[in-house]
Amino acid sequence: MRYKLLLLTSDNEGYRSLLKSCHLPEIEILGDETHQITQANIWLADPALAAPLLPHSKHILWMQSTLSGVGALVKPRQRKDYQLTNVRGIFGPLMSEYLFDSLLIHQHKRIIYRSQQAQKTWRPTSFKTLQGQHLLLLGTGNIAKHIAQTAKRFGMHVTGINRGAKPTIGFDNIDTLSNLPHYLPQADAIVSILPSTSDTRKALNAQTLSMMKPNGILFNLGRADVLDLNALYLQLKQNRDQNAILDVFNQEPLPQHHPIRTLENVIITPHISAPRFPELVVEIFANNYHKLLRGERLSHGVNFERGY
Amino acid sequence: MRYKLLLLTSDNEGYRSLLKSCHLPEIEILGDETHQITQANIWLADPALAAPLLPHSKHILWMQSTLSGVGALVKPRQRKDYQLTNVRGIFGPLMSEYLFDSLLIHQHKRIIYRSQQAQKTWRPTSFKTLQGQHLLLLGTGNIAKHIAQTAKRFGMHVTGINRGAKPTIGFDNIDTLSNLPHYLPQADAIVSILPSTSDTRKALNAQTLSMMKPNGILFNLGRADVLDLNALYLQLKQNRDQNAILDVFNQEPLPQHHPIRTLENVIITPHISAPRFPELVVEIFANNYHKLLRGERLSHGVNFERGY
Repeated sequence: MRYKLLLLTSDNEGYRSLLKSCHLPEIEILGDETHQITQANIWLADPALAAPLLPHSKHILWMQSTLSGVGALVKPRQRKDYQLTNVRGIFGPLMSEYLFDSLLIHQHKRIIYRSQQAQKTWRPTSFKTLQGQHLLLLGTGNIAKHIAQTAKRFGMHVTGINRGAKPTIGFDNIDTLSNLPHYLPQADAIVSILPSTSDTRKALNAQTLSMMKPNGILFNLGRADVLDLNALYLQLKQNRDQNAILDVFNQEPLPQHHPIRTLENVIITPHISAPRFPELVVEIFANNYHKLLRGERLSHGVNFERGY
Repeated sequence: MRYKLLLLTSDNEGYRSLLKSCHLPEIEILGDETHQITQANIWLADPALAAPLLPHSKHILWMQSTLSGVGALVKPRQRKDYQLTNVRGIFGPLMSEYLFDSLLIHQHKRIIYRSQQAQKTWRPTSFKTLQGQHLLLLGTGNIAKHIAQTAKRFGMHVTGINRGAKPTIGFDNIDTLSNLPHYLPQADAIVSILPSTSDTRKALNAQTLSMMKPNGILFNLGRADVLDLNALYLQLKQNRDQNAILDVFNQEPLPQHHPIRTLENVIITPHISAPRFPELVVEIFANNYHKLLRGERLSHGVNFERGY
């Protein structure tokens, strides 16, 4: 075989079975024994697992990262004598699925019809539509952009918050974090997908949270420390018509006895909003592998200098 | 007051209170007494309620229909000496909300995290993503187009079925109803929003339903008689990994003892997928009223000859 593939992931068995079902030509999927590292010329790898083993590689031509973040591989003293590609464009849709799943359930309260069905009744109940609702997105990166455009499909009005109120396609309106108090009282849904910086840390605190709309709903899907969790607990304990859906926490798992777990108006999910889907990674890998065979330029190439 | 508004809807009190909160200038909202019909020069009306009363109007200038369907008002012998406008563009987003609410719940089984929260556990579970799934849309009209474009946001592959395989924007692929058997076995989700015609009636019957993917999900949101409900009952009784979400029925309410109510893999909703939202109708009315005051052309005007 011309190509020998090494798997360095948290789920090699899962990847192996997905890859086998692709029937890729001219490639051998190597076993997980240590000596295979020197044989492999293609790696499909989690960056953190690949980085310490890279010096042992003799033949690496191409590494497909299973993640977008390749920080561990672009550090100054790392090897750069191979082609590195990462995964892109799959997290926006995944985060949109998480968000709109939660938001639509919240509006429609579809569970009512499950119990009607059990009782054999037929009684349309009123529900809210997302049309005309205000979505306040903290963050305007690629994932936020994807969410904004999905929200527009449901007829929402979308404001994005970024560092310099830089105009961004797909939003109705853009402003800076310092103007947050202006938007919080109107926002039906607030979604934080902010990175953690000195500006964003605890941007959602007792003071700003107190400005939420009386029936507003808050999502934290970005970095946990943007939100003061104890302040949110106090806010939602006092305001039972407000809701929060939280997927990220400073300490994960969230401690068992954290009081926020007890609130009916809070939903906690165990960091699942941007999960890894081996199926999607394998699809990107297989597309790139076919390009390699045809001598074409690979997709999602990483520039070692820029670091992405 | 220059304008006098008559309400002829199934929820005049609801409309009255929404209209009052708009503070529209130069308009009096008339009471519901019969003699007001001769006073009014603007009607906000359900077509079926307005049609028989129209001959009694003395001053009607403009009627805003609360519905898209204005069949009752465009019949040959009806008055046509006024401007008629209807509502458009709100049903696509509403049907998208219904569909993606159901579809995302089905994929994500979020209910699991509610019980984890009660048990204070933290255990990410696997779930399916819509990315890469095949959506088969029976119908390619405006509502189907809206759904197709929303599905693309979630990374789905979308095939549309219409009469002549007429190419339609927003779909990956278009074909005719006679080729349905080719698409059913691949479709992760099948959504019928077909009108009722001699071609479409019972297009989803015992034979075609038997071609569904082993874990496929079927939605009927269009006309009820496109689906043979008894055939679906037998199909889903035998195939518990297949699911159906049904909003329309030949007989509504669905008879209490219909056996399909008893299947765990069927969800029944009481014809709610394209509900009327007075808020959205009032928004269209208010926009048009401001145009009337400014002497501008009204939006969503109906051509009496064409009938839409």
